[in-house]
Amino acid sequence: MKLLRVGTAGAERPALLDQDGTLRDLSGLVTDIDGGLLADEAALGRVREAAAGGELPVIDDSAGTLRVGPPLGRIGKIVCIGLNYHDHAAETGAAIPPEPIIFFKAPDTVVGPDDTVLVPRGSTKTDWEVELAVVIGRTARYLDSAEDGLAHVAGYAVAHDVSEREFQIERGGTWDKGKNCETFNPLGPWLVTADEIPDPQALGLKLWVNGELKQDGTTAEQVFGVGEVVRYVSQFMTLYPGDVINTGTPAGVAMGQAEPKPYLRSGDVVELEVEGLGRQRQELKDA
Amino acid sequence: MKLLRVGTAGAERPALLDQDGTLRDLSGLVTDIDGGLLADEAALGRVREAAAGGELPVIDDSAGTLRVGPPLGRIGKIVCIGLNYHDHAAETGAAIPPEPIIFFKAPDTVVGPDDTVLVPRGSTKTDWEVELAVVIGRTARYLDSAEDGLAHVAGYAVAHDVSEREFQIERGGTWDKGKNCETFNPLGPWLVTADEIPDPQALGLKLWVNGELKQDGTTAEQVFGVGEVVRYVSQFMTLYPGDVINTGTPAGVAMGQAEPKPYLRSGDVVELEVEGLGRQRQELKDA
Repeated sequence: MKLLRVGTAGAERPALLDQDGTLRDLSGLVTDIDGGLLADEAALGRVREAAAGGELPVIDDSAGTLRVGPPLGRIGKIVCIGLNYHDHAAETGAAIPPEPIIFFKAPDTVVGPDDTVLVPRGSTKTDWEVELAVVIGRTARYLDSAEDGLAHVAGYAVAHDVSEREFQIERGGTWDKGKNCETFNPLGPWLVTADEIPDPQALGLKLWVNGELKQDGTTAEQVFGVGEVVRYVSQFMTLYPGDVINTGTPAGVAMGQAEPKPYLRSGDVVELEVEGLGRQRQELKDA
Repeated sequence: MKLLRVGTAGAERPALLDQDGTLRDLSGLVTDIDGGLLADEAALGRVREAAAGGELPVIDDSAGTLRVGPPLGRIGKIVCIGLNYHDHAAETGAAIPPEPIIFFKAPDTVVGPDDTVLVPRGSTKTDWEVELAVVIGRTARYLDSAEDGLAHVAGYAVAHDVSEREFQIERGGTWDKGKNCETFNPLGPWLVTADEIPDPQALGLKLWVNGELKQDGTTAEQVFGVGEVVRYVSQFMTLYPGDVINTGTPAGVAMGQAEPKPYLRSGDVVELEVEGLGRQRQELKDA
């Protein structure tokens, strides 16, 4: 299923994109798309049945003005994996990490897939990163295997891990400083349930800036695959339903280009997609 | 005011400790102690009036069995400041940072002040850190001055920034890896409103392990004071009501001791307090 949330920021209602591409209202069936729903197999089953039976009311967006929000509400935490693509580690001059690098984004950085992204005040190095986001569906604590890690995944989404490289690398401390500016985590459009993604290690990822293709990778290049990432993270912290893992970005970010590096500025337009998970489009504006 | 939350984990009700030390029920007046309440001056005013009028129902804890939970619900994010005490930076052999070091703890690490703390599996370096926690009351974005930073603080609490040093320092990536194990952020007992703490840079902090005093510091030793920390953080991310900043720990952690360093083990008891903010007591157990 393709689950999503539509409407005004902060007041989105749950919806479903059916197999015909018709937008259906889920608000009569569930209160939100969140960890509570993802952990509730009976409720998910009811959604699946209603979708198959064609019973769900259609949401009219003939005017094309309906905002798509992030496809997940009440996100508990966003764990991010750094340097997790062979080609991206190479372009940044970094060694392949012997074990996953973990950093965080705060849930309040999440916006809808087509919302404005703000270039922070004082920023000269705002960069893009297309990523495969993993949404957790079952509490994961000290898992034993990558296979078990995959079994704790409820679904997948496109994430844009917007990053300010000066704040991240040149201002002391951890990467978190350059990863948590307002609007720095567009998510969506859809949360695609795991049953529709038989192999998360075979997904293409693409990102364009002002129409020019900048990133063109595949999750086959991940150093640590999705199941292993979930297993690994669960050794250091407990993952709960509704938590998100941004699993890293392939090569092609601004930081990896020749000087002068083409960092983002107000007016730029970024588009990105992950195979089967939909497409985002953001315009940059000054904060 | 001393605000707190009492009852079973996940089902705490809001309460107030009045000037006579009597526990009073706030559940008829507010739904929770959270960012929504802290940002609502009218609602806080009603709580203050009801407290002054002695109208609030008493919560009977004559059996002494009532659990105290964390004093804040629905925490958005927890921003932590590293190496923020002159004496602590010295003991770890680190230079005084030229600007604040930022890392994160996930809100799901928060437990009550007297709840069990779990030593993670595989841990040999679980360490203690008594800290002054700052709770944000107004949205803070690109603040201009430390004075303005202070004006965005709703209150203060004791935080225990439990840390696994091997995970934090020796496993690659950022400090977050050693800061987010389950139960690693006891908070409380109280959220003391800012009006009762005229000078946050003059508070004693103490921590004992098995009755032995280990940390005995003062917030006067902070490299960056509370107002400056809030101002600084607001340049890199937006702070919202109900966000928390753990402002760093003074000298005396296990990592700073002579070998063999006395890291925490199952059965150890940690007690900690910050002047005017109450006292915590945790027993360590294996995860």
